[in-house]
Amino acid sequence: MLHFESDYNNGAQEAVLRHLLETNDERTQSYGDDRFSEHARAFIREAAGTPDANIYFLAGGTQTNATILDCLLEPFEGVLCCDTAHINVHESGAVEATGHKVIAIPNVQGKLMCDDLRHWLQAYFADDTAEHMVRPGAVYITFPTELGTLYSLDELKALREVCDDYKLKLYVDGARLCYGLAASHDVTLPQLAALTDAFYIGGTKCGALCGEAVVFPRGDAPSHMLSRIKRHGALLAKSRVVGVQFEALFTDGLYFQIGQQAVRLAQRLREFFVNGKGYRPFIDSPTNQQFFIVPNADLDALRRVAGFENWCPVDADHTAVRFVTSWATREEEVEELTRLLSL
Amino acid sequence: MLHFESDYNNGAQEAVLRHLLETNDERTQSYGDDRFSEHARAFIREAAGTPDANIYFLAGGTQTNATILDCLLEPFEGVLCCDTAHINVHESGAVEATGHKVIAIPNVQGKLMCDDLRHWLQAYFADDTAEHMVRPGAVYITFPTELGTLYSLDELKALREVCDDYKLKLYVDGARLCYGLAASHDVTLPQLAALTDAFYIGGTKCGALCGEAVVFPRGDAPSHMLSRIKRHGALLAKSRVVGVQFEALFTDGLYFQIGQQAVRLAQRLREFFVNGKGYRPFIDSPTNQQFFIVPNADLDALRRVAGFENWCPVDADHTAVRFVTSWATREEEVEELTRLLSL
Amino acid sequence: MLHFESDYNNGAQEAVLRHLLETNDERTQSYGDDRFSEHARAFIREAAGTPDANIYFLAGGTQTNATILDCLLEPFEGVLCCDTAHINVHESGAVEATGHKVIAIPNVQGKLMCDDLRHWLQAYFADDTAEHMVRPGAVYITFPTELGTLYSLDELKALREVCDDYKLKLYVDGARLCYGLAASHDVTLPQLAALTDAFYIGGTKCGALCGEAVVFPRGDAPSHMLSRIKRHGALLAKSRVVGVQFEALFTDGLYFQIGQQAVRLAQRLREFFVNGKGYRPFIDSPTNQQFFIVPNADLDALRRVAGFENWCPVDADHTAVRFVTSWATREEEVEELTRLLSL
Amino acid sequence: MLHFESDYNNGAQEAVLRHLLETNDERTQSYGDDRFSEHARAFIREAAGTPDANIYFLAGGTQTNATILDCLLEPFEGVLCCDTAHINVHESGAVEATGHKVIAIPNVQGKLMCDDLRHWLQAYFADDTAEHMVRPGAVYITFPTELGTLYSLDELKALREVCDDYKLKLYVDGARLCYGLAASHDVTLPQLAALTDAFYIGGTKCGALCGEAVVFPRGDAPSHMLSRIKRHGALLAKSRVVGVQFEALFTDGLYFQIGQQAVRLAQRLREFFVNGKGYRPFIDSPTNQQFFIVPNADLDALRRVAGFENWCPVDADHTAVRFVTSWATREEEVEELTRLLSL
Repeated sequence: MLHFESDYNNGAQEAVLRHLLETNDERTQSYGDDRFSEHARAFIREAAGTPDANIYFLAGGTQTNATILDCLLEPFEGVLCCDTAHINVHESGAVEATGHKVIAIPNVQGKLMCDDLRHWLQAYFADDTAEHMVRPGAVYITFPTELGTLYSLDELKALREVCDDYKLKLYVDGARLCYGLAASHDVTLPQLAALTDAFYIGGTKCGALCGEAVVFPRGDAPSHMLSRIKRHGALLAKSRVVGVQFEALFTDGLYFQIGQQAVRLAQRLREFFVNGKGYRPFIDSPTNQQFFIVPNADLDALRRVAGFENWCPVDADHTAVRFVTSWATREEEVEELTRLLSL
Repeated sequence: MLHFESDYNNGAQEAVLRHLLETNDERTQSYGDDRFSEHARAFIREAAGTPDANIYFLAGGTQTNATILDCLLEPFEGVLCCDTAHINVHESGAVEATGHKVIAIPNVQGKLMCDDLRHWLQAYFADDTAEHMVRPGAVYITFPTELGTLYSLDELKALREVCDDYKLKLYVDGARLCYGLAASHDVTLPQLAALTDAFYIGGTKCGALCGEAVVFPRGDAPSHMLSRIKRHGALLAKSRVVGVQFEALFTDGLYFQIGQQAVRLAQRLREFFVNGKGYRPFIDSPTNQQFFIVPNADLDALRRVAGFENWCPVDADHTAVRFVTSWATREEEVEELTRLLSL
Repeated sequence: MLHFESDYNNGAQEAVLRHLLETNDERTQSYGDDRFSEHARAFIREAAGTPDANIYFLAGGTQTNATILDCLLEPFEGVLCCDTAHINVHESGAVEATGHKVIAIPNVQGKLMCDDLRHWLQAYFADDTAEHMVRPGAVYITFPTELGTLYSLDELKALREVCDDYKLKLYVDGARLCYGLAASHDVTLPQLAALTDAFYIGGTKCGALCGEAVVFPRGDAPSHMLSRIKRHGALLAKSRVVGVQFEALFTDGLYFQIGQQAVRLAQRLREFFVNGKGYRPFIDSPTNQQFFIVPNADLDALRRVAGFENWCPVDADHTAVRFVTSWATREEEVEELTRLLSL
Repeated sequence: MLHFESDYNNGAQEAVLRHLLETNDERTQSYGDDRFSEHARAFIREAAGTPDANIYFLAGGTQTNATILDCLLEPFEGVLCCDTAHINVHESGAVEATGHKVIAIPNVQGKLMCDDLRHWLQAYFADDTAEHMVRPGAVYITFPTELGTLYSLDELKALREVCDDYKLKLYVDGARLCYGLAASHDVTLPQLAALTDAFYIGGTKCGALCGEAVVFPRGDAPSHMLSRIKRHGALLAKSRVVGVQFEALFTDGLYFQIGQQAVRLAQRLREFFVNGKGYRPFIDSPTNQQFFIVPNADLDALRRVAGFENWCPVDADHTAVRFVTSWATREEEVEELTRLLSL
């Protein structure tokens, strides 16, 4: 059986595991104050071109989003995002659990459009009753998005400009950042860092056992981050476990290679399904998540050779499905898939 | 340099790491729905004598306490504990961040005394203004306590009886459970399970890289636990990472051996410091945390050979210090310490 | 200057004030346990045909919505409403501040349509990832709506049926209930009570100085309501102040007369603006809030004779405006308005 | 039957009610933006000697404490108070419901002692693990206290100094402020204002139907107070209802006279009980709450003539009871009480 259900269905990239092994016996300080975490921070600062960045290691994505947005927002502020945003749909209300409204704007291809955002903000600030509404404090986007799509550099710059105009923080959820950076024609990690107030570099879906690296690129993280993080239950006693993994991921460009390999295999999948099988893409994704519109009649045959996700019904006879590659997907698996489906 | 600062200052027990390695390539479902987690649950159910238990794997202790107490309590209820309790002192207000008051009762040797608890409850329920006060909904204890002490079986039974009389949930924080079970004369895991409504088996401080196993021994966990846990940011996408580790910890009694070894070495430390050096114990701890009253004049010499924690000043000339052994402490380290301090 | 800005811009209905005066010197118990509040409850139970109802008096509408929804919902549940709902737009995030997501469905004429609700619920429960989403626990509607419109009896019954099918609570915000009941062709207070799990009878906008009466028609209010209400800061020490006012409002049908008078005057306004001035209604409202599309060229002249609210721009040349009558609007004021605008 | 149970068991002071009547028909803006509220603010600013003060009118005390403390504190901060403080005991966890820990220090005569506070802070800031504990952000005191006692001017200055040393906000709950100011030998409203960051002037217990006036004496209230207050459900649509009442209370020194009369009658009660009946005071209170130690054998006879509160058992044969006078207590009532009990 072949597996394309998700990018978090096995362990860790081999070099990551190896580094956990080789550092295992060394005694260090806890709560992130260890030399592995320090090295990982130095590597990330260099890769992002942000020598002053504050960097924190948390365990998972939902936790990171809820914790960091709560740090960025005043208690009476909400966060703007598009309606398909992960925090709006798939985090069981973790952001609202910290008391903040998630304000959703209709998406275009899984993205928050700059013009829609500006229009919303103009209406809000023109409204006489604005003080009775939830004040916007930050903008949340994902890179890549939940639909695998990417913001172009121009789109990011435009969002940044709106945020500046309205004094909003720009926060990027990079759960799948390695795949986004690998697929983007123009957005690099330093550019992303330069345009945002905070973002996180995904580990869990990008080769680590667990863990995400939160970056405040300008070194202006709110005060008392350790207390803030712990109050959200997000401080790992043995925080080095994440530090060690990011040290490995940011050694010799591993994080970027992981992304490139997965994206390359995703493109092969796409070529096969679109050109070989004649399926239409459900959305035009350049990253490791691929969505195809499949005749319902084909679903059983597909299921016999591979695991994948039903995304949504398209019409009475067609279903959109999602195939995901990851750091763990091997070339042979894609070949085997195409072979079996070509019989 | 020798290290006795804490039980979370290196990686994982060797068998735990090895199991992470050997399971690494297998593809599984996410969010806890994988065969490793299922095995781990089965092993824990057997070890605890609770065939119907609901078991969840979370990443860390503070997160677990805040999440599970929030699940056990009605929104208007608070949790009773002794004043030295971890949730009252050292979790940055994580429980209050979920909206619940932590109601502290003075400790005796780090423990919540049954009589003090009953007295508090009698006064509360006799008070005409009780509805204006925070209603008690659960009792939180640690096993072992923050001061290394243990509840006897009779003490646990007495607390259970009070909880039954007043319809309170009894929750046990087992961050260091392996050391507590190894040191206890009479409390076993099945007994602990039989006497509590929920407890967690600590992984982070007991040989795992990270992770705690929450147990509802009678299988009566609140509905929709996945949503509840995720809402608290405590659901790991790759939850199997914790499941795999607990599978290793509960294979062939490893979890219990880890505790026994650390407790044995802690007793050697104690014998040396008390009998050899003539230091008085600060508190009579049978577990892996040992507290001694040290003349301030000796502190520098101690510091030169070993890392440990200053606990609190005792008088103008003496300080209480804490030495901690763990699953990672080696016999040779204790010998080296006694050798160097005997010179 | 004439005033049609809102229904909360002066004091209280004369009989309400008089009753505050005549009861002023009597000493009573506090926190709602007084004979005036008991009378008021008895009057409301009779008017609503709900002999077993639990009734609580709170100070204001936003407080009531946030408090009661938090009582109706499990911590991990959200509340469904239409996008124009007061809780979604104009309560500064008070519901989210209690940790619950407000899930908005597009409105039709200010109303939540039964079919849209059912469609949303079908999609939610058919979704494999439902546990990662916020679970719906209650439906919130306003009667009348923020746009002055009303649900018909059939519409309410249909919403009730959906709520039953999906085990959701149905909660009605009756901030302007007296106007809604006066204008409805078919919905009576007993019918509203019979179809809902909880609702509030608005006082602030319906003739009281302040205060709203929350009704659990079947007497199944959650336990410990006093504690729950106080925890939300919503328990008035001198709760009788609201009780006394509702005693007056529900004596001799005053509450219903107040509504009828305001609705009658609103209809006169409407007749004048639509037939006399030729303005199109912005929405077809049968209640005390009337919305007209006014040529921008007329706005200044309107402003010179009366206060009203700009609702929203309609096109480059037209603006929707809102005129509100209330228990305090006098026949002469409407006549004067029509006279001045007819010159 | 005579009533000394509390100071919130009847309506409002006559001049307050009269002013509600005489302003009733005037149409004003809502949400506090009306001329009555503006007058009331001007009167309070003058009485407090704080020309720049920001002043907000809320409905009740618990609501005010929870809302304003949440505004003063960073999310990760807690509030220090003595263990008998109203927020710690009798607000059903309203402060914790906003996510903040209430940190209790043992009281002395119902007061937070400056030395105890300083000692606590020294220990906190000397603790290596301080970041894992809840950071103190504000100090809460009541004037007068829950036991009727008062801080002297020197005690307030000393608390201010500690707050300055540790950068804490000083917040005063003035639920019964009129009685405290009337009884104090040295603390005036301007002095209280000069020494605090925020305080509230109690209305509900001091002659109003409902309502409290929050004062930020230096005009440095946090931004967006209207949104913050509404988010807590504490914004009254018809906020003028409180404004009108405070306008009356601060006209011609009424607020201060109310306090003086009640304190004078409380002293007469005390003289009678202590000198006439030979009861010992339970605590030495100069304000409108008086506590006496009464032989249990006398309780029935007392109950036959007057309502009062059992405070707590003192020993097997004695009970502490509380008698409260208020703005509504009449000279004749005290005389009647002494007459009946002297028979």
